[in-house]
Order: sequence, then structure tokens, then C-alpha cells
Amino acid sequence: MSHRVFNFSAGPATLPEPVLRQAQAELLDWRGMGASVAEISHRSTPFIDIAAQAEADLRQLLAIPDDYAVLFLQGGATQQQALIPLNFAAPGQAADYLVTGHWGQTAIRQAQPYVDARIVASGQAGGFRDVPPRAGWQLSPDAAYLHVTANETIHGVELRERIRADVPVVADFSSSIASEPIDIRDYDVIYAGAQKNLGPSGITVLIARRELLARTGQPRADIFNYASHAARDSMLNTPPTFNWYLLGLCLRWMLDEGGVEAFGARNAARAARLYAAIDGSGGFYRNEVKPAVRSRMNVPFFLHDVALDAEFLRQAGERDLMGLKGHKVVGGMRASLYNALPDAAVDALISFMRDFQQRHG
Amino acid sequence: MSHRVFNFSAGPATLPEPVLRQAQAELLDWRGMGASVAEISHRSTPFIDIAAQAEADLRQLLAIPDDYAVLFLQGGATQQQALIPLNFAAPGQAADYLVTGHWGQTAIRQAQPYVDARIVASGQAGGFRDVPPRAGWQLSPDAAYLHVTANETIHGVELRERIRADVPVVADFSSSIASEPIDIRDYDVIYAGAQKNLGPSGITVLIARRELLARTGQPRADIFNYASHAARDSMLNTPPTFNWYLLGLCLRWMLDEGGVEAFGARNAARAARLYAAIDGSGGFYRNEVKPAVRSRMNVPFFLHDVALDAEFLRQAGERDLMGLKGHKVVGGMRASLYNALPDAAVDALISFMRDFQQRHG
Repeated sequence: MSHRVFNFSAGPATLPEPVLRQAQAELLDWRGMGASVAEISHRSTPFIDIAAQAEADLRQLLAIPDDYAVLFLQGGATQQQALIPLNFAAPGQAADYLVTGHWGQTAIRQAQPYVDARIVASGQAGGFRDVPPRAGWQLSPDAAYLHVTANETIHGVELRERIRADVPVVADFSSSIASEPIDIRDYDVIYAGAQKNLGPSGITVLIARRELLARTGQPRADIFNYASHAARDSMLNTPPTFNWYLLGLCLRWMLDEGGVEAFGARNAARAARLYAAIDGSGGFYRNEVKPAVRSRMNVPFFLHDVALDAEFLRQAGERDLMGLKGHKVVGGMRASLYNALPDAAVDALISFMRDFQQRHG
Repeated sequence: MSHRVFNFSAGPATLPEPVLRQAQAELLDWRGMGASVAEISHRSTPFIDIAAQAEADLRQLLAIPDDYAVLFLQGGATQQQALIPLNFAAPGQAADYLVTGHWGQTAIRQAQPYVDARIVASGQAGGFRDVPPRAGWQLSPDAAYLHVTANETIHGVELRERIRADVPVVADFSSSIASEPIDIRDYDVIYAGAQKNLGPSGITVLIARRELLARTGQPRADIFNYASHAARDSMLNTPPTFNWYLLGLCLRWMLDEGGVEAFGARNAARAARLYAAIDGSGGFYRNEVKPAVRSRMNVPFFLHDVALDAEFLRQAGERDLMGLKGHKVVGGMRASLYNALPDAAVDALISFMRDFQQRHG
């Protein structure tokens, strides 16, 4: 048996153990072909089947309507933050950005060469502990789109209310896609790096209302054209085949586990347990995000004394609790609770946190 | 034991079996960490070590001088064909392209939105069976660079003479990188999708003279800026970690096998054997590329009667010879002879070709 720890990494993140076991078993000889799935042509029927099945499974998992295209791309979410204005806005056109944390800021940075990026509202002055109230948003009626970050992986802020706007809503769902049921029609474009809730790094999903793909956008190479990728079933050039295969195995696993309904219930319950443990620690641990917008996926927390941080991480490691160090932007700790993380991991973390407090409180 | 065929795929292509065995053994528990290498943070020390070792090994394998940067990127060679003008040319500046096959044409297509792409010379009129003679090249003294395709994967044409120009030389080495010793200083930029001679798809290597990275280029998002990737050691955003790891294992394997000197000798000898078998078949098989520029990596060939193609592929499959179908652009057959393909595969192919000719000649 392989030794497996509880892995709270924010991404690349823990993968379902049955997925890794299957990938391991067939790594040298996939479906009796005498070759690894990483060694076969993306233009071959067996690989086209993998790609088609992954799309079908993602459509089933997220209940994606037929008038939305599904693309599997390279470059991560960051690259989509550049391609979105290139594909969906005219040069220099206004584009609205709601900023609820670090990733909303990077989205603006990537877009600025291409659009007049306008900050609708930002939680920065408040340390990204809340979503700015809807009443204060400065929306531009001429904006090409409104960009939001569904879940801020670093600051632990999640949009819990439906975003309504008169322009298309583009949402970075990198760290909360498939974590609970959503209505795809609430959004016009959804994108997500796979390495949090969907699979390994190196592959990115984009879900877009097909009519938006007809927008002229801006002068760009064909490889940067979403419509071209859609027309070629995401095989405009050689795709990351092994990543696509692993993503497909993860999608199948999520469906087998009960789909987004099952994960939604599980994720809400265990995040609530962890936040309750933090809030109930009498200040030994703290999370400063407003409860109504706390992330179910990424739980940043701080010890009352930063001098204890290193010891906390050391003892956590001894208990096989890995990946708890917070992002350098905010420091402290962070527990990422993606779909593939077992419930037992959250219970083990809470138990360890209580023990640690008893010894060091 | 896993059943393993001889895999002549053009890319994604066969990988070294020892690499796959190692990846298989440690897929659930890498270096005793209790997690897959695909599950750990790219910002963690263990992963930074993988990345640094891969760069060091590539520098050793190809003898890359210190004044060249090495980047590990996403998007494949096609994306680099768009990023090269964005990074190295002013908007609308002239850029020279030598076209010796299909990939030289795609390079122009991706660059056209950004530069005045000029065809220095093209082998198209001659069916891409030769490299246009140097005397006839129309070079532009004001070109930002000269782009060449070191090896044309589809047409089987390889540049066998050093390219000299007064402007920086940019070379697509996707299908011949690390196949023989070259002098990196003969080029200013080299790029290569990994999925042929270096590893799996989903990761791309770019080697560039550092002083070129200081060029202003064109307005672009930071994620499209090579200098930004270089400044962050190719971790500007989450990289394709598992692909990088597999690439690293392949590099280490190539060094252990004797490096590019050993592969250069092997590759030349076995390509010569296969071409000799084709040329010696009395017209049953044919390759129409001029011998001086025939590719050592990709050997396209045609049966004298296309009606035999399907039967040839069927019988090849029965002999565990996979991936021989030619690219749809040219039809016929293609045997790709990358470093990871065993010599025995080439011998088995030649033997099968002779048997097939005896039965069907």
C-alpha cells in the first residue's frame, strides 16, 4: 500500500485515490493498446473518445445546456484572463471587474492591455473580508462584460449570491467549479483551471454561451481564438492529452460519487465544521472573512501568535496533514477542501487544531 | 508484464519505458511524501527542485550557454508561433519566414496578425520535397527575425545546413530537438513542443538568447511576455506540473543513455536503414524527399498502390507496429523515429515492409 497523507494544498491539489490507482494500473498499457494513453495520437479514435466522454461527463455533472460550448484549453486561468478581453471585447472597450480578492486583481492586470478595465467595486480597502455591497457597484452599461471571481482561493471569499447584470457575466470558477449545483445560465462564460476541483494542472475548462463566441473581439492569432478552438473540438493543436485523460477520470469519479448535489452537501457541512472550530477557539485561531461570504473551498486562518506558525506546520506534518501553509500574500494557514479531499481529512485537521491549542494555548 | 508495442506515432509519441515504469511506481506516493507529484504545490521546495533539475539537465543535454534563458511553457509550439512576433517584433514590422513544409505555413498564419510576414522562400511549388536553395532566398535586412522549421514533421524535410542570417534566427525544433548535437549559438531562439523527443504533450520548451528577451515587442498581457516567465522561473502561473516531471525524467534518461552524441549516431544510422529499405524496394515503397534533406525523425513513405494502405496498416498492427498512418495532409505512411523508440522497432518495421512487399508485390 502506498502511504497517503491528507493533502490540503490549494492547487495542484489532492486527486481522488481511485483515479490515481486506475492511472497507475494502465500507465504502460492503456486499454490493451500496448502504449500509454500519453503516447497515443490525439487524432486517434481512442483519444477522441476520451475527449468526447470528458465533455459529455462535464455537461452531465454541471448540467451545461446545449447552447453553451465547452472548451479544454492550455495556459491556466491566467491565460484566459488575457483571452477573454481579446475574444469578447472590442479594442479599448469598457469591461467591468468586481474585485473580491487577489485573483480579481490578476484578471484586471491581464486584461488592461486590451480593454478599459473598470473596477465595479473592490473589497481591497477592507482587506478582502467581504464582498462590496451590490448597491455600491459602479456598473458600465457599455461594458463588454462583467468579470467576477466566484471563489477567491487566497482570500477565502466566495460569492454566495447570484450576480445579475445587463451585460454578459464572466466568472472565474477555478477553485469552486463542481463544488455544488449552480445554474450555468446565471453566467455567460465560466472558466476554471483544472488543478483544484477537476484534475491536474495543465488543462483549463472554458464554458461559454455559443453566441458570445461569434463576437469579433480583437485582432489576434488563430490559436488565441476561442471560436477556432470550438470549431476543432479543442484540438486546434496538440492538446495536453494525459491531463485531459486524468481530468476525464476525475469527472467520472465525481459522477459516481453522486455528482454536484452530493459534493455540495458534503462541502457545506465540513466547511461549517472547520469554521465552527476556528470561531470556537476563543481567538487562538481566527478567520476574518464575513461569515456570509466565507469560502467553502479555501479556509484561510491565522494563529493568534505568528511565532507558533512554524511549529503548527511541523506538528501537522507529523500527523500527515500536508499543504496547510497559507499563501504568501496573506500568510497564516489555509486549508483547501476540494471535492477529492476525504471528510476524514477535515476531521483530522479539526482534532489536531484542538490538540495543538491545548498544548500551546 | 505490460504488453508494449512499437509506437511510431508522430506526437504524442512513445516514451522511454523506464520513465513510464518510474512514474507508475511513484504515482501515488512520490519520494515518500504521501502524495503524487501531480498533487503537490508548484511553489513547494520539492517541486521547485524538479523544475530546476529539468532546466539543469536540458542545459547539459543541449550544451545551452548561460546567456540563453530556458523557459517551460504551455500552449504548444503553435502558441509560440504567435508569441514570437508579440515578443520579438514591433507591431507590423517585417519578419522573414523560410517555408519548408506544413509547420512553416502555420508559423506564418499565427504571426500574420502581428507582423509583416514575408516568405523568404518556399518549397511548396515543389511539393515540399526540397529546401529552396540559399541563393534564391529573399531576406529582408529590416526583418525582426528569420523563422525556420528545423524539421518538418509532416513533410519529412529537415534543414541539414546551418542557417546564417544578419537577423536573429528563430527555429521550430519541435520534432528534432535533442536528436543530435547542435551548436545552440547557431540560433537565437529555439522552441519545441515536448511531445515528440522530450516528453509528453502539454509542455513546451523555449530557449532564447537573454538579450532578445529585452526587446519591447508589442502590447500584450503579462502572461504572453516571455521576459515575465523568465523572471519567475516559468512559474508566472501554475505550470503543468506532472508534464514537467515526466519531461524531467525523459531528460535524465537521455543523459543516462549517452546524451545527444549517442542519439545522433543511432538516429542517423537507423533512418539511413529505413530510407535504404524504401529506396531499395524497386518502387513498391517511395519517399520523394531529396536525400540531402530527408528527415531523420519523420520518414513519410507511400505504397505504390494506395489501395494497399489499409491492409498495410492492418498487418502492421498485427505485428505490434503502431502509429504508422501518414498525416492527412499528405496521406500514405509515416514512421517517426524519436529518441525513445528502440532500434528494434525500426528493424521490425523494415522486416515487415519486406514481408508485405513479398506477399503483395
